[in-house]
Amino acid sequence: MNFITVAFQGEPGAYSEQAIWDYFQGKEVQPYPCESFEEVFEAVDQGTCHAGMIPIENSVAGSVHTNYDLLLRYQLYITGEHFLRVHHCLLALPGVPLEEIEVVLSHPQALSQCARTLRKMGLKMRAMYDTAGSIKWIQQEGKRNMGAIASKRAAQMYGMHILVEGIEDDPQNYTRFLEIRREAVSAPAEAKTSIVFSLQNQPGALFKALSVFALREIDLTKIESRPLVGKPWEYLFYLDFNGGLEEGKVRRALEHLREYALMLRVLGSYPRGQF
Amino acid sequence: MNFITVAFQGEPGAYSEQAIWDYFQGKEVQPYPCESFEEVFEAVDQGTCHAGMIPIENSVAGSVHTNYDLLLRYQLYITGEHFLRVHHCLLALPGVPLEEIEVVLSHPQALSQCARTLRKMGLKMRAMYDTAGSIKWIQQEGKRNMGAIASKRAAQMYGMHILVEGIEDDPQNYTRFLEIRREAVSAPAEAKTSIVFSLQNQPGALFKALSVFALREIDLTKIESRPLVGKPWEYLFYLDFNGGLEEGKVRRALEHLREYALMLRVLGSYPRGQF
Repeated sequence: MNFITVAFQGEPGAYSEQAIWDYFQGKEVQPYPCESFEEVFEAVDQGTCHAGMIPIENSVAGSVHTNYDLLLRYQLYITGEHFLRVHHCLLALPGVPLEEIEVVLSHPQALSQCARTLRKMGLKMRAMYDTAGSIKWIQQEGKRNMGAIASKRAAQMYGMHILVEGIEDDPQNYTRFLEIRREAVSAPAEAKTSIVFSLQNQPGALFKALSVFALREIDLTKIESRPLVGKPWEYLFYLDFNGGLEEGKVRRALEHLREYALMLRVLGSYPRGQF
Repeated sequence: MNFITVAFQGEPGAYSEQAIWDYFQGKEVQPYPCESFEEVFEAVDQGTCHAGMIPIENSVAGSVHTNYDLLLRYQLYITGEHFLRVHHCLLALPGVPLEEIEVVLSHPQALSQCARTLRKMGLKMRAMYDTAGSIKWIQQEGKRNMGAIASKRAAQMYGMHILVEGIEDDPQNYTRFLEIRREAVSAPAEAKTSIVFSLQNQPGALFKALSVFALREIDLTKIESRPLVGKPWEYLFYLDFNGGLEEGKVRRALEHLREYALMLRVLGSYPRGQF
């Protein structure tokens, strides 16, 4: 049997694990839980796992910045993307009614996706390292005044009671996951490409950089700026656009960008996900 | 006596409180602690406080997204900015040596600014609601195997022992704070302006938007994209640039941008801070 081992951050029952099941549907896959995102990158880089699955962006809470920074630090490739529809549940110890809950624990991203609803319910929020960790802590300490935000699957796995299903603020809550590997893939016609670059800090620099795409009618799907460590208030730009490295206009746009950019790296060209 | 009351998120000893002391140096000022950033906006909006002081961006960890979202939700103005040099300390209960520490608690932003150093030291990280809250919890529970990341001032205020001073990964660690008020200020010559806008999702849209600044040689200092709630994968753009609303070319650039933008709001035009 040839299992594909796929690293993810969190414990069994995490949303990242769900993304792995969905993305690799029909294949023999073995999820490999890691404590941090860095350990996911490490597991792929060292060859402990064939691939990694990382959240990069949520349609409500925004980008997962740690992972943008790790994409730059490690020499891995983005080889695919997957959109996961996120349904959050408010969980508590069995037998605890909603009225007893005062504080809700979860990962900061999950809390921020439910923040408005939780505030309306008069509940306080406390950030924890991850969702499963929150559940374990509530169980360990027998905290009847505490709830956790996690998936329905996590509730079943840890024997928790679901108080509210679908507690996310926005019903259109999706998380975009990236598959990362040591080797790049050859992207098909319907491809997306991710790059990172830095520019000289001068007026019009970003405008010039974007012109290489606009002049060729290449559609940008995401721009993200991150601080350049060691250079306060200078930025790295992460850009996603529709098109693959096999297309002439994409190759020419990147050659053109290389004329302005201080640094430019292609993080991957990969099949577009559906949502 | 006419005190200026200034709302901030956190407890006494927080970095935001330090930013207030520095920014209002020589004035009679009364910091007003709030539990969340939303309460800071609320306190200014309701007139409970004259002003608020919020962190918007750190030179290492990046933007404080909650505050970008709150700037949009509340009809307040940015009236000033301040750059605070951040020195983090690793604190523990008095009498506890570094060797006994296994886990370090703090606000997620503080942890991410020390993540590389903490990992090298073999220490695990756990996110908490704020720095002072981490200290209180360690004291309450008498946790000898836990440390907290906070300021030197917090160590003194809470009677904690400083194990390591300057534990931040990058010595060039600054946080940019914004002063917010109910009334806009009239910015002087050396001004900065912050705006937020949304665009139609079509190729070249951002390029056209940036052209209104590039054509007038207006220097952008920051671009930030945030998800548009309810419209997955469409974005709001937050832009800072050098120049004030009193300048003709700035006014013309904004008129020009209004032709393309679906929405455009000026968040404030204010004196530039020094760092």
